[in-house]
Amino acid sequence: MTVRFGLLGAGRIGKVHAKAVTGDPQARLVAVADAMPGAAQAIADQYGCEVRSIDAIEQAGDIDAVVICTPTDTHADLIERFVKAGKAVFCEKPVDLSLGRVKQCLEVVRQHDGRLMVGFNRRFDPHFRAVRAQIDAGAIGAVEMVVITSRDPGAPPVDYIKRSGGIFRDMTIHDFDMARFLLGEEVTEVAATAAVLVDPAIGAAGDYDSVQVLLKTASGRQAMISNSRRATYGYDQRIEVHGSDGMVSAENQRPVSIELANGRGYIRPPLHDFFMTRYTEAYAAEIAAFIQALASGTAAVPTGEDGLIALALADAALKSVAEKRTVLVSEVI
Amino acid sequence: MTVRFGLLGAGRIGKVHAKAVTGDPQARLVAVADAMPGAAQAIADQYGCEVRSIDAIEQAGDIDAVVICTPTDTHADLIERFVKAGKAVFCEKPVDLSLGRVKQCLEVVRQHDGRLMVGFNRRFDPHFRAVRAQIDAGAIGAVEMVVITSRDPGAPPVDYIKRSGGIFRDMTIHDFDMARFLLGEEVTEVAATAAVLVDPAIGAAGDYDSVQVLLKTASGRQAMISNSRRATYGYDQRIEVHGSDGMVSAENQRPVSIELANGRGYIRPPLHDFFMTRYTEAYAAEIAAFIQALASGTAAVPTGEDGLIALALADAALKSVAEKRTVLVSEVI
Amino acid sequence: MTVRFGLLGAGRIGKVHAKAVTGDPQARLVAVADAMPGAAQAIADQYGCEVRSIDAIEQAGDIDAVVICTPTDTHADLIERFVKAGKAVFCEKPVDLSLGRVKQCLEVVRQHDGRLMVGFNRRFDPHFRAVRAQIDAGAIGAVEMVVITSRDPGAPPVDYIKRSGGIFRDMTIHDFDMARFLLGEEVTEVAATAAVLVDPAIGAAGDYDSVQVLLKTASGRQAMISNSRRATYGYDQRIEVHGSDGMVSAENQRPVSIELANGRGYIRPPLHDFFMTRYTEAYAAEIAAFIQALASGTAAVPTGEDGLIALALADAALKSVAEKRTVLVSEVI
Amino acid sequence: MTVRFGLLGAGRIGKVHAKAVTGDPQARLVAVADAMPGAAQAIADQYGCEVRSIDAIEQAGDIDAVVICTPTDTHADLIERFVKAGKAVFCEKPVDLSLGRVKQCLEVVRQHDGRLMVGFNRRFDPHFRAVRAQIDAGAIGAVEMVVITSRDPGAPPVDYIKRSGGIFRDMTIHDFDMARFLLGEEVTEVAATAAVLVDPAIGAAGDYDSVQVLLKTASGRQAMISNSRRATYGYDQRIEVHGSDGMVSAENQRPVSIELANGRGYIRPPLHDFFMTRYTEAYAAEIAAFIQALASGTAAVPTGEDGLIALALADAALKSVAEKRTVLVSEVI
Repeated sequence: MTVRFGLLGAGRIGKVHAKAVTGDPQARLVAVADAMPGAAQAIADQYGCEVRSIDAIEQAGDIDAVVICTPTDTHADLIERFVKAGKAVFCEKPVDLSLGRVKQCLEVVRQHDGRLMVGFNRRFDPHFRAVRAQIDAGAIGAVEMVVITSRDPGAPPVDYIKRSGGIFRDMTIHDFDMARFLLGEEVTEVAATAAVLVDPAIGAAGDYDSVQVLLKTASGRQAMISNSRRATYGYDQRIEVHGSDGMVSAENQRPVSIELANGRGYIRPPLHDFFMTRYTEAYAAEIAAFIQALASGTAAVPTGEDGLIALALADAALKSVAEKRTVLVSEVI
Repeated sequence: MTVRFGLLGAGRIGKVHAKAVTGDPQARLVAVADAMPGAAQAIADQYGCEVRSIDAIEQAGDIDAVVICTPTDTHADLIERFVKAGKAVFCEKPVDLSLGRVKQCLEVVRQHDGRLMVGFNRRFDPHFRAVRAQIDAGAIGAVEMVVITSRDPGAPPVDYIKRSGGIFRDMTIHDFDMARFLLGEEVTEVAATAAVLVDPAIGAAGDYDSVQVLLKTASGRQAMISNSRRATYGYDQRIEVHGSDGMVSAENQRPVSIELANGRGYIRPPLHDFFMTRYTEAYAAEIAAFIQALASGTAAVPTGEDGLIALALADAALKSVAEKRTVLVSEVI
Repeated sequence: MTVRFGLLGAGRIGKVHAKAVTGDPQARLVAVADAMPGAAQAIADQYGCEVRSIDAIEQAGDIDAVVICTPTDTHADLIERFVKAGKAVFCEKPVDLSLGRVKQCLEVVRQHDGRLMVGFNRRFDPHFRAVRAQIDAGAIGAVEMVVITSRDPGAPPVDYIKRSGGIFRDMTIHDFDMARFLLGEEVTEVAATAAVLVDPAIGAAGDYDSVQVLLKTASGRQAMISNSRRATYGYDQRIEVHGSDGMVSAENQRPVSIELANGRGYIRPPLHDFFMTRYTEAYAAEIAAFIQALASGTAAVPTGEDGLIALALADAALKSVAEKRTVLVSEVI
Repeated sequence: MTVRFGLLGAGRIGKVHAKAVTGDPQARLVAVADAMPGAAQAIADQYGCEVRSIDAIEQAGDIDAVVICTPTDTHADLIERFVKAGKAVFCEKPVDLSLGRVKQCLEVVRQHDGRLMVGFNRRFDPHFRAVRAQIDAGAIGAVEMVVITSRDPGAPPVDYIKRSGGIFRDMTIHDFDMARFLLGEEVTEVAATAAVLVDPAIGAAGDYDSVQVLLKTASGRQAMISNSRRATYGYDQRIEVHGSDGMVSAENQRPVSIELANGRGYIRPPLHDFFMTRYTEAYAAEIAAFIQALASGTAAVPTGEDGLIALALADAALKSVAEKRTVLVSEVI
């Protein structure tokens, strides 16, 4: 079976997904839509597909699935429209910045028995995937503590910050999903601290740039997340998972692994400087997984529910910072 | 000037300090006391010093300083006695498990203008010291986040746990001191989570074996501490410090740094399995620093006040776990 | 300008090059030829190009360049034919196993002012390329010693060994080229030792499986090459270059960089187990460089001359083993 | 049993051995001799032993063993004298720079049934010792190839070079011994290349500063040694041993293992800058092994014969460079 795709959004991430879809022997990119006609045309030219309107894609008989890469505030509406139109939907995270709106949207998906996969790409990074595989294989026994370090090379523009939903919903949300992916048990409690250390303008916009979060599950498994909008040495993305029988970790990645040694010491190059080079393989693998799920009729994971819970953890962290106390996840969901 | 020493306590750590004192050209070990005469005699034989009673050492005219390695519940009393007797005092941590008793003791030290150094040996580990030196040299700019991983190879006997004051006062206390050593600013807030994952008997004794702590200073600098009474791969002691201009970290240490490679992969040996082999150099260096301070008339750091604050952070963490909220240090001190 | 390609040989390496050509915006794959029609057809189907005979490609007006991936004993003939036909030629190493035949072939290339690039793919590995870039940037000063470790995960079948020209011409030849790429000066002397340690059948076939080579240039720069047909831990490909001001090295590569720690130690997975996964990026980059050279009219390097010299070094090493003495390169070329 | 020691030579290495002897509970340092009375007195003062003449130590009834740390040209004579006087002898390498003189000396040792240990300290380095232990435990199967990298931080004064016997006898000799320690089979063939790249004055003195050596045993096991008198990044001392079932290696050592990360990359400090800090533990362990052998009446290894063979390999390497051919060890010994 070949899955026939429509692409909604021809921006930076849309291009990444266009390449993944066209490179997959089980898929075909049929059409692309974008508010900027030139952007859509460029993708159409490169991959030999059509430019269509979103409406046309919605009504198309030759399209089975869509990839939504439009701005965040359009996600929930588009998911609802395309699920109603009977298309399978892959949507970039987040479904929405409001928990209420996400719940409403997922209810529509359920009512229409829709298929929805949410783009938590890091689950598909080969290194993190290998960490999870070790856990699944029992290599470290029962999971006890997950430590996630996630630091961006630099802060995004304050304009972006303002409509991002804040650091917990924009950046930490990936780590909340990763913690759930690795803990093997639902998080019940959240405690967080937050500060503005990188850029006062971020504070002026009502957000933080340096945060720490503690998560705990019912049986006492714990996770620590450390985030910063600043890392001079590149895109810092590390995971370690401690269990009753051992520990497994994923190292940072760099474009070239050479080392220079001289009187100043031993010097390795900085890490990747951008999430799109760091997660190249993950972006391709998540689309491949979506196609594989559609082609084989199996579940497409991470689901809308995964998106909902990660957002709830973000809301709980924010509440914990505001009220200086441990927040139960059940308080916010 | 040669500093003439009396050693109080001839147990495991007493032997370590005896070796350090006798190996220092600026010091001489004059006498040793222990409730077990055989233990004292063994040290006396090895290093050619006398066995004396604690009273005799207190009154001795040929002793300038004492090293206290007796059980914890004798520390505060001995500090007071020897400070009153005009001796300089090096005391193993902690001064006492009760904040009130520590304050009282430090008041006596102040009244007698006494000299007191507390044994937070890790400050003298060459690797951690080099981390601090990088910070002091401005290599990472302003400190923003300190991450301390400290995991014991195995839990101590439950009997020890019961009189230890609990994991925060017994184990995390070293990390609280290290966080202060590296943050460059006093901690004002503490949030912690705790669980029993290693051994239910530890829980039955009213203690935890797996804890996480977040610390925050007035300006927003943060620290994360992760502790466990279990690490199958050895004594896990890592530090990383993030600043505005970079990051500096100290790696784990192992007895031999070889690597075996075969069909199963690349295998390096486990870490040190014991704090005394891991911190061999630190124990020697802290006594050398004490001797140097006495010989040169400079301040002996860490001070009794450092011991007090680390204990206050432990009390705050315990309170945070109990009350599921962020605790201000000012609430407990 | 778009470079129009014919592919000669649709085997394992032909498929790799087909993907590289079709993925390059400056190139188009027009036709493919193979003695096995099914193999050619598979590539034609996947990339939408034609199946043609070698003769047809030779005479084609719509083809500018060919990639030769046919068996080694056809290389020299095909190079001559296609150079005479006015096509640019990329040929997999080696041009031929006989120095005399290579010289003859290169003479034909010269007479017809042909363009020939030889496939020493490792020069295009991003890590090795970065090593060379450091040298070119002066980071290590004047090169003094190059150390190349190259060990295969396992020996090829003895049938392959028999027609391979022997380990020096088949395997070490890559390292000879790499040494030249990094030394910055021509090699003048070769000394080698060789043994059969992996498989007696290799010795019975008149070859070796474990060899060491020392190279020296006129000014005294040196290189050491260590080869084995066995490496239980994966495909071992390391380079280090020492200079007057420092050292630069390239580490081994593995598919996933995770680490497992437990009572047995710290365990990282084995390396890549195959040259095609290890050098994926290098294969793509060498074809991109060929296309770029054609599109821009610049030199295509490595040249036929580079292929000739690497083969001469192999012959010199073989002679050194046979005669147990240092062999001058001038003796064999 | 307590072994009573005399120390001959109170220079840099004499001080190291004095500390090792006095720190060993099975040994006592009775007397020290040196041509410079002040040097001997300093050691006597620090460790509470006597200053005596070499003659007096030779005739002393209260001395069982001597450690010879005098200049190289006195070694063979002193070994003979003290063996004749019935003392056990530990002598710094080399016994002599002339193979003939060494043979003569060892003959005297044999005639008097003397005990002689030669100071190849690196065999006692805990990391190299662990490499050997892995081999002995069968962890890598049959040894196939030993790779030794040994690069000094800087060249010694030319005056030293002139009386050193040349780089092969002065520096590579340690690596020859290490190769034998690890190969598990005697070396039969030597091929070497040599150059002057670091300092023309070394060449003017008739020596080399950059050398490479290939060793081969009867069954085809091989070793590669790479030496330079220059390493800007510190004292480079690496070993890797390949076997039929795997590889084991020893990493370089540095005083502190911290890492700084910033926009320039990840930076670890240089290695040790001096053999005495790099091999601190090895020096203590070799004397402990000597004492242990004497106390228990077991063999003291490495023996004089080990010293003889390492020197023969140096002579063979020199001959190989001069005659540009592989030299059989049987030609020189």
